[in-house]
Amino acid sequence: MKPIILITNDDGITAPGIRSLIEAVHDLGEVIVVAPDSPQSGMGHAITIGKPLRLDEVDVFNDLGIKAWQSSGTPVDCVKLAHDVILHRKPNICLSGVNHGSNAAINVIYSGTMSAAMEAAVEGIPSAGFSLLDFNFDADFSVAKEVVREVTQKMLAERMPEHFLLNVNIPKVTKEDFKGTKICRQADAHWSENFIKRKDPRGRDYFWMTGKFVNRDRGMDTDVEALDNGYASIVPVRIDFTDEKLKSWLEKKF
Amino acid sequence: MKPIILITNDDGITAPGIRSLIEAVHDLGEVIVVAPDSPQSGMGHAITIGKPLRLDEVDVFNDLGIKAWQSSGTPVDCVKLAHDVILHRKPNICLSGVNHGSNAAINVIYSGTMSAAMEAAVEGIPSAGFSLLDFNFDADFSVAKEVVREVTQKMLAERMPEHFLLNVNIPKVTKEDFKGTKICRQADAHWSENFIKRKDPRGRDYFWMTGKFVNRDRGMDTDVEALDNGYASIVPVRIDFTDEKLKSWLEKKF
Repeated sequence: MKPIILITNDDGITAPGIRSLIEAVHDLGEVIVVAPDSPQSGMGHAITIGKPLRLDEVDVFNDLGIKAWQSSGTPVDCVKLAHDVILHRKPNICLSGVNHGSNAAINVIYSGTMSAAMEAAVEGIPSAGFSLLDFNFDADFSVAKEVVREVTQKMLAERMPEHFLLNVNIPKVTKEDFKGTKICRQADAHWSENFIKRKDPRGRDYFWMTGKFVNRDRGMDTDVEALDNGYASIVPVRIDFTDEKLKSWLEKKF
Repeated sequence: MKPIILITNDDGITAPGIRSLIEAVHDLGEVIVVAPDSPQSGMGHAITIGKPLRLDEVDVFNDLGIKAWQSSGTPVDCVKLAHDVILHRKPNICLSGVNHGSNAAINVIYSGTMSAAMEAAVEGIPSAGFSLLDFNFDADFSVAKEVVREVTQKMLAERMPEHFLLNVNIPKVTKEDFKGTKICRQADAHWSENFIKRKDPRGRDYFWMTGKFVNRDRGMDTDVEALDNGYASIVPVRIDFTDEKLKSWLEKKF
């Protein structure tokens, strides 16, 4: 029997990235798509509690013979709806993306792409999120598609451990300059925010968030370092957030 | 010099929980409050990218002599705004809550309360999120206030390690039945979702998310177990999500 592959994203069902993801794997299993009806970047692990959700079958991927649904909810809502309302069972794996822009290092916590994958992992579905370091709408996804296919084939070939979750980022390079995949740890980085203050036509202040990515990690085994050197980074992600080191410290001091 | 204590939440600046938090610690430092202007439950680590943010000084806590701002943004936005637009420097610690409802176990990933605290920790500010296991608007915060004060005093007394982040949950018990605090690990649990399907007046389907919390962890050292036995749970939380065990597995198999 063919494995069921659930595909979602956070840029919305019409983004080029999700089409690239589907094209890369659609012959590897029975693909179903449940994705937001509009862009959801920066939604983190948001869920929709206080308002109802819409879910409609759409024909966006009919040309590939793929069934697809769009939802008014967040990426996490999409995974929950796919599991509980459409499939009524667990898909074999869940793939999220391909995101337009990096989700390396600390971006994992802001990322709707990774949150969808994380939600699947919490529900016991082996999962991977894919992101290309190129924000452009007409970005070249050819290297990304190779990486997606390679990682998916490996996932389907192995008996994966419980709570299997990967954060895969692909550098903006040509096929010739691409060095392959590398298993990494998450770089210790943060965003140094700068808000731009403006006045609206009524004289009231408002702020736009901008920001600069700051990598304070000099390690050679990080995702940021791998990407800088032309590799696609694969970071395995935990869903148990317990900090064991801090736990020992607290047990002595608290 | 008095330490600067940044306080935020996800239930909104008018929620009783944030007032309890402020009352519990306002004499321990110079308190400033930056919180959402409306409830933000389930917002996870969402940030506001595509639209501008409002930020207005409000007199909600004038009776306690505390300066406060409300923002149209998410809890994470509030921390960023506090740091970059109001204080122009790091507060000494950040406290988030007191949330109305549990953020124990896997709820840490959906929680706006914990995301605000996590954002502060990413920026290098020692931080703690507090949640009371009682959804009622008129919940009794007296035990919660004791726990908040005790944890905050310990934080201010110690030289804390980098990336210090605590997820503190308080059981719904009377002072007499309260057993004290316990340092724990995050229980392995998930939500078993059930969507309720309805038809709108035009005949179109919509869905409400409901759900049942399922604890599949039988360990005696988890936050859920501590709370069930009348303890307040303190779980230290990582911001490096790298799964070292899965990394070793991948290095062999991938």
